[in-house]
Amino acid sequence: MDKSIDKLFLERRTIRAFASRPVSDDLLNELFTMAARSSTTGNMQLYSAVVTRDPEKKAVLGPAHFNQPAYRNAPAIITFCADFHRFSLWAEQNNAHPDYTNFHSFMVAAIDALIVAQTFCMAAEAKGLGICYLGTTTYNADSIISTLNLPSLVVPVATISLGYPESQPAQTDRLPLASFVHQEEYQEYSSETITDLYAEKESLEENQRFVAENQKEHLAQVFTEVRYTPESFEQLSKLYAQAIERQGFKLFAE
Amino acid sequence: MDKSIDKLFLERRTIRAFASRPVSDDLLNELFTMAARSSTTGNMQLYSAVVTRDPEKKAVLGPAHFNQPAYRNAPAIITFCADFHRFSLWAEQNNAHPDYTNFHSFMVAAIDALIVAQTFCMAAEAKGLGICYLGTTTYNADSIISTLNLPSLVVPVATISLGYPESQPAQTDRLPLASFVHQEEYQEYSSETITDLYAEKESLEENQRFVAENQKEHLAQVFTEVRYTPESFEQLSKLYAQAIERQGFKLFAE
Repeated sequence: MDKSIDKLFLERRTIRAFASRPVSDDLLNELFTMAARSSTTGNMQLYSAVVTRDPEKKAVLGPAHFNQPAYRNAPAIITFCADFHRFSLWAEQNNAHPDYTNFHSFMVAAIDALIVAQTFCMAAEAKGLGICYLGTTTYNADSIISTLNLPSLVVPVATISLGYPESQPAQTDRLPLASFVHQEEYQEYSSETITDLYAEKESLEENQRFVAENQKEHLAQVFTEVRYTPESFEQLSKLYAQAIERQGFKLFAE
Repeated sequence: MDKSIDKLFLERRTIRAFASRPVSDDLLNELFTMAARSSTTGNMQLYSAVVTRDPEKKAVLGPAHFNQPAYRNAPAIITFCADFHRFSLWAEQNNAHPDYTNFHSFMVAAIDALIVAQTFCMAAEAKGLGICYLGTTTYNADSIISTLNLPSLVVPVATISLGYPESQPAQTDRLPLASFVHQEEYQEYSSETITDLYAEKESLEENQRFVAENQKEHLAQVFTEVRYTPESFEQLSKLYAQAIERQGFKLFAE
């Protein structure tokens, strides 16, 4: 396979600073056409994507993403949603009786939406654009649902910032393959193995700076005590579950 | 961008019939290296992948995927898992206190795993391989967990069959872009719009054959009454939720 495809995969980086150049309708259509070739369950295409480019609309949606820089300076924002709404409308008006209102329905549609979102991102990068996933999507789903006017059975699962890169940042670290690839069965880790697998990550200057800036003893504590605390995850579990249930998917057993 | 990248996206199809040629360790490592460049939440890489190539192991895992042809004749099966286990081990042995045992934790890790799985699939296709997603992963998670020896906080979310294509099947249909792309806000569909958007799908010979074979009046009924019945989705909701909870993620509010 030619080198440019290897580059597409191996030299990618997340882009958080975008040039002012807009993303055209034609280009968006090309990217969505490429993304839509992705596999989905039963070829039902249980997803939708909402494009935000209008500055006024973008300002209203902004707080849901904490107006983070990767949101603010992007010319386009795409919200990918798990969507059983369109399929259900089609079924209802054709004497079928859809009732896709449970946890499995949500998961099947969320998987469809995430697979398509990632294909869209790879297509965008192939065309010279850059992307950043905004983890805030699951934090503030309620506000996104209301701003984008999402009907029942439509839930946002991933949002990306999209635009032409202002610059190419350095690539970030990755764990060695041995950390996540298992042959035939999951191989439990010894304490020594874990130490080895995370050694390079811990040794990086930027990660050591993180530890110092946050006055912690170890990088892991920056994650558990600052960035992703158990308390925040507990709160986010409730918020996202409530938003999903309000959209019509019953998560909780009766 | 060169034509081969356009072909990679636009001419892809799901492969269910594989040649006997095996998938080598070197190639798998190359694909996992490419996949691992994907974005993940906080660069935590909350996923793992279990490779099944050993015929004996594959026979034990087979019933979980109903031994469907796309499983049986594939030289390699990859099970992608949401994984907060490895990260938690790392945190625990470094005086951090992980407690990633709730719905948000599961979703964050599942999103990581699905994004990496799809990048892996695109990389595989770029290298001349073919893939098929096996929807059975969420059906029989319990059996997969036991066969692959998955520890707590590890849950399978996507399985792919992987191998060299035996042949190139015809591409399947896709809904028009207007069915799933919304500008600025979700645009509710009129009944006429739904009819238009699904007209091509309904008119396809293979879909009309589906309707006839199943003795239904309309394609939508093949989905709601045969392929994806509400009763089966209700049952699958319980099974997957129970498997996730047994792995240590509390889904249900107390």
